[in-house]
Amino acid sequence: MGKQSEILQNLIDSFAKLPGIGKKSARRISYYLINSEMKVSEKLADAVIEAKKKLGLCMECHNLTEHKICDICGDDKRDGSSILVVENFSDLYMFEKLNIHKGLYHVIGGLISPLDGIVPSSLNLASLFLRVREKKVRELIIGLNHSVEGDTTALYISEKLKDSGINITRLATGIPIGGEIEFTDEVTLKQAFMERRIF
Amino acid sequence: MGKQSEILQNLIDSFAKLPGIGKKSARRISYYLINSEMKVSEKLADAVIEAKKKLGLCMECHNLTEHKICDICGDDKRDGSSILVVENFSDLYMFEKLNIHKGLYHVIGGLISPLDGIVPSSLNLASLFLRVREKKVRELIIGLNHSVEGDTTALYISEKLKDSGINITRLATGIPIGGEIEFTDEVTLKQAFMERRIF
Repeated sequence: MGKQSEILQNLIDSFAKLPGIGKKSARRISYYLINSEMKVSEKLADAVIEAKKKLGLCMECHNLTEHKICDICGDDKRDGSSILVVENFSDLYMFEKLNIHKGLYHVIGGLISPLDGIVPSSLNLASLFLRVREKKVRELIIGLNHSVEGDTTALYISEKLKDSGINITRLATGIPIGGEIEFTDEVTLKQAFMERRIF
Repeated sequence: MGKQSEILQNLIDSFAKLPGIGKKSARRISYYLINSEMKVSEKLADAVIEAKKKLGLCMECHNLTEHKICDICGDDKRDGSSILVVENFSDLYMFEKLNIHKGLYHVIGGLISPLDGIVPSSLNLASLFLRVREKKVRELIIGLNHSVEGDTTALYISEKLKDSGINITRLATGIPIGGEIEFTDEVTLKQAFMERRIF
């Protein structure tokens, strides 16, 4: 076939490296940008650079922020005695949208997974333990995925804090609301049965 | 919830405007970039601007090119007497990957759709008709989608060229290879039946 422009290939490759974008989508996006006005490309390029330059991590909870302390940690109407531990910004955002957690967060930045080289020291855990010890933390809610890695990380955190005297809780597992028993996986169903509650 | 950074929101919005990227993917991509090294963002921003600056359309066939004439039109080993009409770069790329068309292309840039304001003069059709008249074109293969808009455009082209004496062909319709009759839509099945071939 006609040799493809290296500039085009470079653009496609740059998009294909982003999470959730395959080669075909990357090509479609590239064509879209080339066909659009220059200002569309400029706006995108500027947004990327500006975000990378101006956004950093909150010194307290490792949430994204333009300042040293994020808006959540800096909000004195929030309950500093309750910390919700999340894996990443996306999960924090999910909880914030629900508007149910009135406390603070701690973004640990991943889950323990030795096979992938992610050990406890790779995560924001030391700062979590320090926060729990130094601030008046009453409850630590572990809002991590219910996967092998999530379970390992939750166990590690609870072991480390078992003498601290704070309440450590974890999100409930079970059949999703609206979910059908017939289509629920066996592990979830078994767990839901064993943890059945008084009606 | 904690007020979201405008810089972050701007980045998410910029990605969400691209084709095939929803709000959730845009957020995921934004977090990925902010979490990656600066050079990842720089590379992406540079690729976007460079492509927009340096890529243009081939004067002959409207394919993407860094030059005045694209590599396909400039390749004298290709058969200039056969032109495959395609809607856009993506379709051209699909055909080129198959390596079955030895002739040239003509990218018309859309399909006639009066309700969307796309009339024949919105497309690269005048240049197509000029090419057919001025060059020794023997066959025009219409490689447009088999949709209402594709059919309208194909009909328009063939009407305009009916006195030119060239062969005008169109891609075959029918049941996809591996497709099951049970799951084929009625229009396709009816068409496949009427255009049945000797076995």
